[in-house]
This record gives sequence, structure tokens and C-alpha cells, in this order.
Amino acid sequence: MDNVNIKKLASELNLSISTVSRALRDSYDISQDTKKRVKDLAEKLNYQPNPFASSLRRQKSKTIAVIIPEIANNFFTIAIDGIESIAQEKGYHVLIYLTHEDYNKEVSFVKHLHSGRVDGVLTSLSSTTSNFDHLDELQSKGIPIVFFDRVYPNMETIKVTTDDYESAYRGTKHLIDRGCKKIAYLLISKNLSIGNNRMDGYLQALKDSGIVVDNNLVYECGLNNKENLEQVTKLLSKEKPDGVFASVEKLAMTTYAACEKLGLHIPGDVKIISFSNLEIASLLKPSLTTIAQPAFEMGKQAASILFKAIEKKNFKLADETIIMKSKLVVRGSTAKA
Amino acid sequence: MDNVNIKKLASELNLSISTVSRALRDSYDISQDTKKRVKDLAEKLNYQPNPFASSLRRQKSKTIAVIIPEIANNFFTIAIDGIESIAQEKGYHVLIYLTHEDYNKEVSFVKHLHSGRVDGVLTSLSSTTSNFDHLDELQSKGIPIVFFDRVYPNMETIKVTTDDYESAYRGTKHLIDRGCKKIAYLLISKNLSIGNNRMDGYLQALKDSGIVVDNNLVYECGLNNKENLEQVTKLLSKEKPDGVFASVEKLAMTTYAACEKLGLHIPGDVKIISFSNLEIASLLKPSLTTIAQPAFEMGKQAASILFKAIEKKNFKLADETIIMKSKLVVRGSTAKA
Repeated sequence: MDNVNIKKLASELNLSISTVSRALRDSYDISQDTKKRVKDLAEKLNYQPNPFASSLRRQKSKTIAVIIPEIANNFFTIAIDGIESIAQEKGYHVLIYLTHEDYNKEVSFVKHLHSGRVDGVLTSLSSTTSNFDHLDELQSKGIPIVFFDRVYPNMETIKVTTDDYESAYRGTKHLIDRGCKKIAYLLISKNLSIGNNRMDGYLQALKDSGIVVDNNLVYECGLNNKENLEQVTKLLSKEKPDGVFASVEKLAMTTYAACEKLGLHIPGDVKIISFSNLEIASLLKPSLTTIAQPAFEMGKQAASILFKAIEKKNFKLADETIIMKSKLVVRGSTAKA
Repeated sequence: MDNVNIKKLASELNLSISTVSRALRDSYDISQDTKKRVKDLAEKLNYQPNPFASSLRRQKSKTIAVIIPEIANNFFTIAIDGIESIAQEKGYHVLIYLTHEDYNKEVSFVKHLHSGRVDGVLTSLSSTTSNFDHLDELQSKGIPIVFFDRVYPNMETIKVTTDDYESAYRGTKHLIDRGCKKIAYLLISKNLSIGNNRMDGYLQALKDSGIVVDNNLVYECGLNNKENLEQVTKLLSKEKPDGVFASVEKLAMTTYAACEKLGLHIPGDVKIISFSNLEIASLLKPSLTTIAQPAFEMGKQAASILFKAIEKKNFKLADETIIMKSKLVVRGSTAKA
């Protein structure tokens, strides 16, 4: 007989894995009708719900997986240090999987973890991920998942994130206070929760300062660094913004390089602010004004929560978002002319 | 009956695992007497040599492990990209293990890999590793290992490295050509093959230029960044070198920070050169002169070789060192006064 898993239930009922998973957990956002249909079929096919599968699987691998988009990014490098500080205490190994912002890789890694290879998963989503069935399925197998930074808001688990909206608002206000009237906004993906929150903060700050939003100033970069450099150079020379808000660190570096190419002076011609955990931000020419996320603490927090779920039998992770505060560090790139 | 492995042979004979492993492989550096003792016992206890264990284990996990000291280092970040470019072609997953320069972690990871979890291992040694039994033991189980950058010279396998001696020689000569007479050398560990080769290049270049070596100018840094900053600051203010050769990237950043603290001008007061793959070296104040290793190509090369061993039955990795060339990139930090 086939092994009855949540995927099979979903396909038999023509529902998404996420819906079935939530119906089985009695989630408030699933209708009574659907819940009944799911539960009846689960009973009929003798589907084994989570806690059982989960407790069987406990304390086998002494390993957790960290699935992240990249490591050429100081936020993730430092967050991993935070995660490892806890894993070390617990005597656990940390395996790192890099998605390189590729949804298919993310799915493939997650499937790779089904068979009890790891006791829990910490993850920050790839920017191309817009379907979450692979994560719902993993959770339904009783493997605890905790998100950090780039989260999947609809999963019933804990998500550790930062005050993206507020700090983007504050960063944009800072540029306005320093005299900027035409502020470009660079992002990497509109799929990501953090991307949207940050952009909303930027838009609201413009609005509150009576600055009309100009869509030509908002640019969604891709994954190719060379192309990004070309596009940002084009943006700077065509639109002539007097301020740039980079929503991720590498786009700040792209902007520095574009300014160098165009002979634009930072901060004289263009002021730059960026979300960044670059440790050498103060050594750049000019030093970079940053919004620094508490990366180490976020990793530590996410790992501590994950270990609660790993160590306690039948422990259910609450459906909560923990918001940690980022810090605005003003440096040379936004100095007054 | 107990499973007879190489460890058991070693303990019965009161020899190191490495010696037993090499005796079984008929290595030239083991005496005939020892070889006979090892082989006799292996026969008596019915020890199963590598190729058999190895072929049994092949093509199970579709996963390779990369064990490296850290990721807050652009060399490793880029090398991983090179490794992944090959693994992707082969349909393999890459798992990353970080030792944080800790020998015990390295041993623990390697033991974790014995049970067929991965089909092969790429590794760059931790700076605190001076005993290699764990690696010999893994190899003896038929799991192919390829080293890159920080290699274990005595293992019979392929090591991918760079021309550390020559490029350190060239870098030191460059400082001398630019007028430096008192050149400090910063390293992280005297255990590492690359550390020694680089230092030898530095020493020889001084000698060839008639500069007497001053041991007070050679400083072995630790793992604590704050302490390193204190020590390098002390070194700069006490010894007043007019040039600094940083043998690893992070020590260049430490030197920049120390100069800032002391109000020393780079390159006016001190010139700085560093082994580094920092992509934003040109954006620093001043831009940093680097010796850039071909990190991506090294990762790619090491992975390609590893896959040969994984894919072909009974394929034996040659005892070879592949030396790839680094590039000197002259920038502002060594400009003439």
C-alpha cells in the first residue's frame, strides 16, 4: 500500500498542500466544510498526523539545516554565527544549503530533508519563491521550521524578522532631512515579504513629506551583478536622483560602482543609504550610512526557538512574528553637502 | 565479531591511523618492516581494503560535503560558487560545514560523514588542525577527499592550491619597490601549509633585497577580531612599520581600522597589501592592493576532480598538487607617496 502523506490527501481532494495541512491543524482560516472533507479522507486512508511521525523522528540526526539564499552577504554570514552559537551549546551540527535565489533549488533541498536527515530547519526564503507547498509538506512531516528575515507569513510557525517598514521609513526620512528630493529605490524582488515592507516604508515616508512617487525611480534588480550595474548606471544618468535607497547591501555596492563610472560624487551629487551588515562600511570611500539588522541576535533567537521544538515532545510552534529592531548608522554617504 | 577498521589495526599495532593507512597503500615513506606488520595483521583480522568498501558506497547520497573554516571571507564564498557550478551540472547537493578554525569541530564533522551521508568531501583545513587521523580514516573508508587552498600535504590525493610562495614574494617585492624598508607580516596560524609558504615568500624577498628580518614585525593573530585589532594597533604604534603584508583578508581590514585609530595615513605613513578576494577592494578608502587567488576556478577545479573519483569505480586520486596562479592587483594602498 502507498504511504499516505499530506500530498496524496491534497491531490485526492484537489486542494493545495497548504490548505490540507492547515485543515488538519484546525486552522481558523479554513472553512468547516473543507476541514470535514480533509479529516474524513485522512481517517479513511489512515493518514498518520504529525505528532506521531514527529516523535518517532526525534533526536536522531543531531543536525539542523539552514537554507538561505546566499553567503556573499554579511547579514547571512553573521546570522549563521548566531545560529551556530546555539547549535554548539546543544551539541548539534549545522548544515548550510544555498539556494542562490532559485526556487527549484529550494524545493529540491527541502525534499532532501524529508527522510529524517535533520531534526529541524531554519530558513530565509529565496527571492523567486512564490509557492510554498514544499515547506507546508515538510512541516506536515513533523519537522519544525522557523523562518528568519525572509519569511513565509502564512505558515503557522514562528518568524523572526526586523522592523523593515519602520526602518525603511526612517532611512528615507533621513535622506529627505539631508536635502534629498528625488530618491531612487533599488530592490531585488517583489516576491519577498521584507521587500514589500521596506518599499512600503519608503513610499509612506515620501508621501508624508509631500514628495510625489515617481515609478521611474523604483528599480527591481535581477540576479546578475553586471546587468544590475548597467541598469543602475542608466538609472542614475537618466533620472538623476539625488538620493538612493538600496534595500539590500549588494545594491549599495552596485550604486557606488555606478557613481564611480559616472564620476558622480557621493554624497555631493548622490547620497546613499542601505540595509547592510557590512562590517567594513566605515572603511568605504565614503563610509556607508547603513540600516543594520541585528543579524547575530536574529540567528540566535531563531535557533533557540527551533531547539525548543526539537527538544520537547509535541511542542507546537506558535503562529507568531517576532520583530527585532534595526539600527540606523549615519556615516559619510549621507553627509550634508 | 567486531568490524575491523583501520582504527582497530592502528590501535592493535600501536601506530597512527595515518601510518597504517599509508602502509596499506604501499606509500614510499613507510618502512618495509612496518608495512609487513600492518599487512600481516590486516590479513589475519580479515580487514577489507578500500576499493571494496568504496564501490559499495558509491552513488548513494548525491551529496558532497564542503568543510571550510569560515564564510566571512570572500575567498571561500567565491570558491563555493565554483564548487556549486560543477555540483549543479552533476545534479549533486552541496552541504557546507563550518569549522570556525576549530580542530575539534573538524574532527566531529568528518566523523559525521563516515556513514555514507556524502559521496565525497572537499575541504580546506582549520588553522588549528595539526593531527590528520580523522582525514586518513575517512579516506580509508573509500570516501574521496580533495583539498583546496589549505591542504594536508601528506595525504595521497589531489590538492588544489595557489602559488603562495611566489605571490607572497612578489607582493613583498612590490612593497619594497614602493619604498618600504620595514615591512610587518601578519598571519593567522603557523600550522597551515599556505601560511608557511606565504611567510617563506615574504622572508626570501626581504633577504634578496638585503633587508634584515625583524621578528618583532611578524605577528601571529588569533581568532578574536577585537584582540587582533588591539595587537595590530600596538604593533603599528610601537614598531612603526612603513608597510604591512596581510596574509589573509580580514587582517587587512584590521590594519585599516588600526590606522584609523592611530590617525596613520595609508599609503603615506603605511602601505598595505593583502591576500584578498574582496570584491569591493576598489571601493575602500584607499582602495586595497590585493593578491587575488583564482577562487572560483579553484573551487571548480577541486570539484571536477572530486567528481571523477565519485563517478568512476576504483578511480584512485593521484598524489598531486595543482598550483593555480594568483594575481597582483595594484591599487591605492601601495601608491607612491
